[in-house]
Amino acid sequence: MSAQIPIAVRDRVSERAKQALDTVAKFVEEDCIPADAVFEAQIGTGEQRWNSHPAILEDLKKKARSLGLWNMFLPKGHYKESPGFTNLEYGLMAEWLGRSRVASEACNCAAPDTGNMEVLAKYGNEAQKAKWLKPLMEGEIRSAFLMTEPQVASSDARNIEMKIEKDGDHYVLNGQKWWSSGAGDPRCKVYIVMGKSDPNNADPYRQQSVIIVPADAPGITIHRMLSVYGFDDAPHGHGHITFKNVRVPAANLVLGEGRGFEIIQGRLGPGRIHHAMRTIGAAERALEWMLARINDPRKTTFGKQLREHGVILEWVARSRMEIDAARLIVLNAAIKMDEQGPKAALKEIAQAKVLVPSTALTVIDRAIQAFGGAGVSQDTPLANSWAGIRTLRLADGPDEVHLNQMGRNENKRGKEVADKIARQKAKTEELFKQYGVTRQELGGNIQATRYGKN
Amino acid sequence: MSAQIPIAVRDRVSERAKQALDTVAKFVEEDCIPADAVFEAQIGTGEQRWNSHPAILEDLKKKARSLGLWNMFLPKGHYKESPGFTNLEYGLMAEWLGRSRVASEACNCAAPDTGNMEVLAKYGNEAQKAKWLKPLMEGEIRSAFLMTEPQVASSDARNIEMKIEKDGDHYVLNGQKWWSSGAGDPRCKVYIVMGKSDPNNADPYRQQSVIIVPADAPGITIHRMLSVYGFDDAPHGHGHITFKNVRVPAANLVLGEGRGFEIIQGRLGPGRIHHAMRTIGAAERALEWMLARINDPRKTTFGKQLREHGVILEWVARSRMEIDAARLIVLNAAIKMDEQGPKAALKEIAQAKVLVPSTALTVIDRAIQAFGGAGVSQDTPLANSWAGIRTLRLADGPDEVHLNQMGRNENKRGKEVADKIARQKAKTEELFKQYGVTRQELGGNIQATRYGKN
Amino acid sequence: MSAQIPIAVRDRVSERAKQALDTVAKFVEEDCIPADAVFEAQIGTGEQRWNSHPAILEDLKKKARSLGLWNMFLPKGHYKESPGFTNLEYGLMAEWLGRSRVASEACNCAAPDTGNMEVLAKYGNEAQKAKWLKPLMEGEIRSAFLMTEPQVASSDARNIEMKIEKDGDHYVLNGQKWWSSGAGDPRCKVYIVMGKSDPNNADPYRQQSVIIVPADAPGITIHRMLSVYGFDDAPHGHGHITFKNVRVPAANLVLGEGRGFEIIQGRLGPGRIHHAMRTIGAAERALEWMLARINDPRKTTFGKQLREHGVILEWVARSRMEIDAARLIVLNAAIKMDEQGPKAALKEIAQAKVLVPSTALTVIDRAIQAFGGAGVSQDTPLANSWAGIRTLRLADGPDEVHLNQMGRNENKRGKEVADKIARQKAKTEELFKQYGVTRQELGGNIQATRYGKN
Amino acid sequence: MSAQIPIAVRDRVSERAKQALDTVAKFVEEDCIPADAVFEAQIGTGEQRWNSHPAILEDLKKKARSLGLWNMFLPKGHYKESPGFTNLEYGLMAEWLGRSRVASEACNCAAPDTGNMEVLAKYGNEAQKAKWLKPLMEGEIRSAFLMTEPQVASSDARNIEMKIEKDGDHYVLNGQKWWSSGAGDPRCKVYIVMGKSDPNNADPYRQQSVIIVPADAPGITIHRMLSVYGFDDAPHGHGHITFKNVRVPAANLVLGEGRGFEIIQGRLGPGRIHHAMRTIGAAERALEWMLARINDPRKTTFGKQLREHGVILEWVARSRMEIDAARLIVLNAAIKMDEQGPKAALKEIAQAKVLVPSTALTVIDRAIQAFGGAGVSQDTPLANSWAGIRTLRLADGPDEVHLNQMGRNENKRGKEVADKIARQKAKTEELFKQYGVTRQELGGNIQATRYGKN
Repeated sequence: MSAQIPIAVRDRVSERAKQALDTVAKFVEEDCIPADAVFEAQIGTGEQRWNSHPAILEDLKKKARSLGLWNMFLPKGHYKESPGFTNLEYGLMAEWLGRSRVASEACNCAAPDTGNMEVLAKYGNEAQKAKWLKPLMEGEIRSAFLMTEPQVASSDARNIEMKIEKDGDHYVLNGQKWWSSGAGDPRCKVYIVMGKSDPNNADPYRQQSVIIVPADAPGITIHRMLSVYGFDDAPHGHGHITFKNVRVPAANLVLGEGRGFEIIQGRLGPGRIHHAMRTIGAAERALEWMLARINDPRKTTFGKQLREHGVILEWVARSRMEIDAARLIVLNAAIKMDEQGPKAALKEIAQAKVLVPSTALTVIDRAIQAFGGAGVSQDTPLANSWAGIRTLRLADGPDEVHLNQMGRNENKRGKEVADKIARQKAKTEELFKQYGVTRQELGGNIQATRYGKN
Repeated sequence: MSAQIPIAVRDRVSERAKQALDTVAKFVEEDCIPADAVFEAQIGTGEQRWNSHPAILEDLKKKARSLGLWNMFLPKGHYKESPGFTNLEYGLMAEWLGRSRVASEACNCAAPDTGNMEVLAKYGNEAQKAKWLKPLMEGEIRSAFLMTEPQVASSDARNIEMKIEKDGDHYVLNGQKWWSSGAGDPRCKVYIVMGKSDPNNADPYRQQSVIIVPADAPGITIHRMLSVYGFDDAPHGHGHITFKNVRVPAANLVLGEGRGFEIIQGRLGPGRIHHAMRTIGAAERALEWMLARINDPRKTTFGKQLREHGVILEWVARSRMEIDAARLIVLNAAIKMDEQGPKAALKEIAQAKVLVPSTALTVIDRAIQAFGGAGVSQDTPLANSWAGIRTLRLADGPDEVHLNQMGRNENKRGKEVADKIARQKAKTEELFKQYGVTRQELGGNIQATRYGKN
Repeated sequence: MSAQIPIAVRDRVSERAKQALDTVAKFVEEDCIPADAVFEAQIGTGEQRWNSHPAILEDLKKKARSLGLWNMFLPKGHYKESPGFTNLEYGLMAEWLGRSRVASEACNCAAPDTGNMEVLAKYGNEAQKAKWLKPLMEGEIRSAFLMTEPQVASSDARNIEMKIEKDGDHYVLNGQKWWSSGAGDPRCKVYIVMGKSDPNNADPYRQQSVIIVPADAPGITIHRMLSVYGFDDAPHGHGHITFKNVRVPAANLVLGEGRGFEIIQGRLGPGRIHHAMRTIGAAERALEWMLARINDPRKTTFGKQLREHGVILEWVARSRMEIDAARLIVLNAAIKMDEQGPKAALKEIAQAKVLVPSTALTVIDRAIQAFGGAGVSQDTPLANSWAGIRTLRLADGPDEVHLNQMGRNENKRGKEVADKIARQKAKTEELFKQYGVTRQELGGNIQATRYGKN
Repeated sequence: MSAQIPIAVRDRVSERAKQALDTVAKFVEEDCIPADAVFEAQIGTGEQRWNSHPAILEDLKKKARSLGLWNMFLPKGHYKESPGFTNLEYGLMAEWLGRSRVASEACNCAAPDTGNMEVLAKYGNEAQKAKWLKPLMEGEIRSAFLMTEPQVASSDARNIEMKIEKDGDHYVLNGQKWWSSGAGDPRCKVYIVMGKSDPNNADPYRQQSVIIVPADAPGITIHRMLSVYGFDDAPHGHGHITFKNVRVPAANLVLGEGRGFEIIQGRLGPGRIHHAMRTIGAAERALEWMLARINDPRKTTFGKQLREHGVILEWVARSRMEIDAARLIVLNAAIKMDEQGPKAALKEIAQAKVLVPSTALTVIDRAIQAFGGAGVSQDTPLANSWAGIRTLRLADGPDEVHLNQMGRNENKRGKEVADKIARQKAKTEELFKQYGVTRQELGGNIQATRYGKN
């Protein structure tokens, strides 16, 4: 909540945002977290899981809206209906949302809807906004973002193969997608689809387009849902979907042919901050569960409570420190994005993208270890949380791709620093002369004392 | 297979065992691994999962038996029906069994039956053997081992609370157990139960007894099954079970009252070797899947196949090296147990217990990362394998308990080495005198040159 | 320099500080770094190393002073002669100072003088200030801080044994100290000594006093200097010193008897920030040397430059990310200290103390590895830098003591979060009732389908 | 000593070797380790360090020889004067030698003489043996191996540039070398030099030759010695040497022109085992010092001895486990080399080369941390040991080069395992048909229940 904002960024958070943050924190802790298990129960079992819409969620949405907690993610100044928070401010709220399974959706701030709404708000035309953005912003429907494909290495997005072919005033789509997250939800009515409209374009970054596809368009088949470790993430889910001659009106194209890369890159910045801050929240919650466990008076081993074992306290301390460092990385990135835009913040956002999931996984894994068997089971939120966050090291580009990119960017300084070091060495030589000093080489007289000077 | 046995231990493996090992390897690769997915499909969905007995498994059992691959785990010389392999030899076979979900059971070498059969073979009386050991050895029934309890920290086994009270010629059991692995299988007919028959005994290691309980005894309730990172491990499963006035004949007691610790400790050694070697096998399989992926010609990124990215090859190399080191630790422990018995091998077994799961988790996680989305999903064996092995860092004592014990044992040398170092320092002083040399202390003349000698 | 200040804290840095920062950066890069090797040569060899005062340093001091770079460390508002920078602002400058061996002293900002000047400025009386603080602030003399003792575990400062006994209007000191850093410098004229004036005080934190001792007081013997790995750190050095009936006037006592802990704790906060930021600077410099090396066109292996090997770029990226995270941790701590004082910032300062050296050691070690043989030798600043920073994991309390303390502090939330989780679980039960839903336990019908309900 | 040989390899150690091993252990612990500090003192200070030959070492050599501990490294069957130990047997002895600074040389088993003697024994002609091998085997002279060059990336040995040009019945050498270890010793009389005799050969592995060069040949200049983290390693040292028209008789060429790679590769296998086992010994000694420290009754913190802090005991346990695993990797490699030769053991040797130094550095660093300030200083062998072993991650190829090579070798299995996995998947499909089962895809009925079948 607002009292816990790191002091370095506190001044940048408006009073209004601090109040909203406190409201979010209270709503999450008192309403959402207790509702998580009920939500899970209302989803049911078997096939029902993909056809349910838990009643408790609608009640939470009503409450959130009544508290003014709705669409907080929409960036300030970005869209007229934005509640007006900066990325920093919403980031702090997202941390709290990340503690509960239902909280993000309750506030209409759940992925992938948020990214999709941003795409529509930023790049959509008025008709597209009226038809799709409006009901999304009202929380009436949900959406999916279809990019990754099973048959190629999608971490290099240029590999994507889904065909988007013009046919009169329609586009015809053929291909397959997977990890279409959210496609499992019966309320998912629209897909934002990335594919290739111009596969022969000489510029590999201009071959792609993004198009809006109704989920019930003929030719679409959801084959199955992908599991994450053993979790199905129902009803949301991660779909494996084929497109066979799926026809959509040409008007559904977003922004224009060949602008797919531009759109998805604009979509990524804020989303990465949101994911990162929700993940920080999950790590904080795991740490709290760990604290509860190691202070549980019923759980003593070898005459001590767990908290009295030195190695456990070190886990607590490291977890605290690592979360705090990771959070500062994200908040600094959010500020950079707020002040200079996503492009200027690429480095900072990439760092948040890579650092946060690893940090959180380490913290959660320690908590699981502290819990013993309960940690891996359904009796704590830990195993589910771990599995979900593990995908963040892969989703939207694996760590290694981002690290490689970050390394190449940092390496651009290579020549400059090499030149500087050369100048410094030259200056040193000058100084040696100026001061009339010679280097005292280690063993510099061996030759003379042993064989006479050569 | 036999050609890959580390050279350091190869001489100790008999020709007969080498042949059996080659047979196991072929059976696993050609029959069991292909059967894994069919087995999963035959388990079915929903509640059916806890009431199924896949037909393919019975066929595999027949084939295994026909190949002479049956009960290989039973230690040589330990029981008349043992096929006569050493722990080393069976360990090498267990590595192959660990590559497949169904292979261990197909050879009647699946936990917890193996440990339970060992208990019965080693400590059971003739009646107990006839009634329970025989059908277990024939693969007609299965069993569970009930030790861990949810309400206490079971990693300190003295905390266990299940009451075993004498009442005439019966014992009456009250309490609850969880992580009763195997209890989900409809063929699980018998529980080996650890509890307290003498809770007030001054010796905390003499309060416990082990008793045989039929799974259908009145008063037993299986409340639910525990999940492992979302996996249910059906039909095997991990049960949460209560005992309410469960009466069993006094003759079901194993070995005698107060001998529970003795029994479970005798049970642990070989089982830890089995688990460790199966885990090595799972790590090897993960490495193979990773190799297949990084050489998949369809999966290129940024103009290269995955294998061409330097960091990926380093993962391969480290995985190879770490698995090889871990395997040697286990095989050395198996040899020690073969030659000097489990007690003498405590240190070596504990090292295998701790080192192997961590190593395998690292290897499997690298493979998951190399696969991207497929890695966390049902499309590879990796996520399921990871989850199962993650429990080995907790089961049968968390790593930290074992490390603490290992640290205390190693520390017993503390005084001895301190004394030795003191003797060495004293000898050094003698030598200084003998050679008429004085130490050249760094800056040893500062005082003299600056202030004159004090 | 000022353009590189992390955006999250940039607003807090005054224009004047930004200008000073740019001046520091230029001075360090263009004057100090080139001077480092000359300084080393002027120190000379053998015993001379402890009696030298390199001329180049005095020239640098003059230049620094002319640039207005003098005593920047003295906290704003803390002392009338403070140049008026906040801890944040000076921290940013300290990062640059940390890139060069001579820069801190050139600006009269070198440890341990900085901490000692703070002690005198904050706790000294006017006579003490006139005699010792003034020449220190003028850079005319240097000082040492004598706390650690070889015969006890000084990481628990209560163990310190140096006797400080009242004898008339003098105190008499007996005992030994080591790691008396700076005692090697011939210009080191004064020791700030921590010892026990009241060893029987019931409060173990009131037994200690701090007293000012002239370095040439009779009874003091510098026995030798301690090396750090193989470095002697001459002329500064790390002294091993004994006190035998060393008499100092009672007026040399600082603040009062029994107030030793209070003084050393007040001394620690800013010093830890200084050390941490200098260490960040050393890590940045190591990264730059690494960049220079991996882009060196003469150093190709297997047909590629080092920068083209994937694993090297990942080191670069991780180094960038880890340094950035660590820096934010320190700057956030500095801001907290600026705004709320060192006591309120204990947690943040401890995190900086622990996180930064580990981070820097990792970065420097990667640079060493990239350099190969040159990295461990005298041909780069890397090995020397690594060795010096390695001591920071020990000095002023080893990591483990700080982590334990941090763990205990965080754990104070244990009961509160356990209570919260209990409330949340209770609320969940209410919601189940309210919504008329029951939990769908995994395998919850096993009992019924198998045996009929118990 | 012999009682501690890992059980897996014990059978392979002859009784004679066990006796020799016990003798080595006793000699190292009782004679060599106490002599280390005297040796250091006898080296003296300043330039004298490069011109000293400590008397104590000659006495130790006499004693070693009288104990039958001389040239144990020379592989069995390799040379008529070999004492007849296998690589495994000598490896076990080398572990003990690695505990002391002087022990290897005392037994005439010090690098680089061992490798050089092997080269001469294996590839030298009779005249070369008579002139150089004989005095080396007698311990009368010492030698250096000159391969690495400062101006290129020597980790790719093809980069080496030293010119070896035929001129009549002489070769003329021009170029420079560094990390010429041992060149500092006044008794170093001969260099084994790798250079290019045929730089235009199409086969980059046939351009090199190895030639014997007397250390006092005109045209050779030892410019200086390289330090290792501040240590000079005198009198041995690591030389930086130039060759200017250095003429040596053509008869000094070893084996023949263009056979340089063949020679250095033959030289590497045993040497890597020796280094690895000495490093294991250093790690064992560090662990012993750590045990001594954490049980030191004078060193209590916060009311406990260090051994009572949980995290310290975990360090002890992990150190024990990691050393044991690393040792088994080396011993397995030694056995492979004994039984199948160095070429067959390439993988195993590379693993030892990479795994052992990292393991030892971790163990030693823990010991340093446990010691606090004493750990980094001259008061324990730890800092010196750490620095020396740190170079092993670079020397003779950095870890990354070896890991890359190991990764590429392991990856050769890529196609084979991919094919196997494909066959297994095909078999699975057959089994599905055979058993009449269909896969139960997660969410496989979404499409049907939601939209009707497509």
